[in-house]
Amino acid sequence: MIIFGIDPGLAISGYGVVNYIGNKFEVLEYGAVITNSCEEFPNRLKIIYDSYTELFEKYKPEAVSIEELFYNKNVKTAIAVAQARGVHLLAAVNQSIPLYEYTPLQIKQGIVGYGRAEKRQVQEMVKVILKLDEVPKPDDVADGLAAAICHAHSLKFANKFKIEKY
Amino acid sequence: MIIFGIDPGLAISGYGVVNYIGNKFEVLEYGAVITNSCEEFPNRLKIIYDSYTELFEKYKPEAVSIEELFYNKNVKTAIAVAQARGVHLLAAVNQSIPLYEYTPLQIKQGIVGYGRAEKRQVQEMVKVILKLDEVPKPDDVADGLAAAICHAHSLKFANKFKIEKY
Repeated sequence: MIIFGIDPGLAISGYGVVNYIGNKFEVLEYGAVITNSCEEFPNRLKIIYDSYTELFEKYKPEAVSIEELFYNKNVKTAIAVAQARGVHLLAAVNQSIPLYEYTPLQIKQGIVGYGRAEKRQVQEMVKVILKLDEVPKPDDVADGLAAAICHAHSLKFANKFKIEKY
Repeated sequence: MIIFGIDPGLAISGYGVVNYIGNKFEVLEYGAVITNSCEEFPNRLKIIYDSYTELFEKYKPEAVSIEELFYNKNVKTAIAVAQARGVHLLAAVNQSIPLYEYTPLQIKQGIVGYGRAEKRQVQEMVKVILKLDEVPKPDDVADGLAAAICHAHSLKFANKFKIEKY
């Protein structure tokens, strides 16, 4: 099944598309949707929406796995990123693609096996699991792939993780 | 000019559409887009997006005036509302309608004349300015109309208010 993982963001939104068949991963594409802060805010939302709409049309994923917002510092930034996250969800729901949401903790658990893993460990695991030559950059891209892997693993261990499915 | 005012929300999003000609207001429509919390979150975003897309197509406003998020209590709620606000903006930008953003303080200033006015005063002023028989309910609807009035007034006193135009 084709799983589309996203680490949503406003300036950088990382994604990874994998085909998960019989416990094996085939990487189809990974990258980032980048919007420039010089651009007007609503236009940045449009760029994100249009980019994901195009990617979803291209890959027709059976699931979109998207990271929940982690907000502990700047509420103003969180509000801006949340508005961007809304249009990510809309792009998926407008194509009737089932959405699955994971917290950063769940994604770490789903990849490294425990939630307190370091960011670098998670990224190395992404590289190993997907047999990539190097860790994808920027970090958001690796995080997008991690969301996709997490969903694949959670399908296997559906009872182990509490999945919030829409 | 047709001005479309919005008090964005997730459960209730209030709006008001006015035609502002020669310092006079003609009220075209007001109401609320309501989504039920039983509905899945991405579907609620879709309902909001589709509803505003339809309303914008109907009225072809020359400006969308939208209230900024006011978040001082519950960050979790603010994050949910922010995601909804993102799809309001997207609906406007997808139809190339200029967006104007006002803080609650600016809207009060734009209607009652000072920023510390009580909510009830603002709503009474909306009724009086638009010559309505009663204050529209729920409050969000009156707030949507207030956003539209505020923008009309700020056009007149462009130097008086700091307008954040996209």
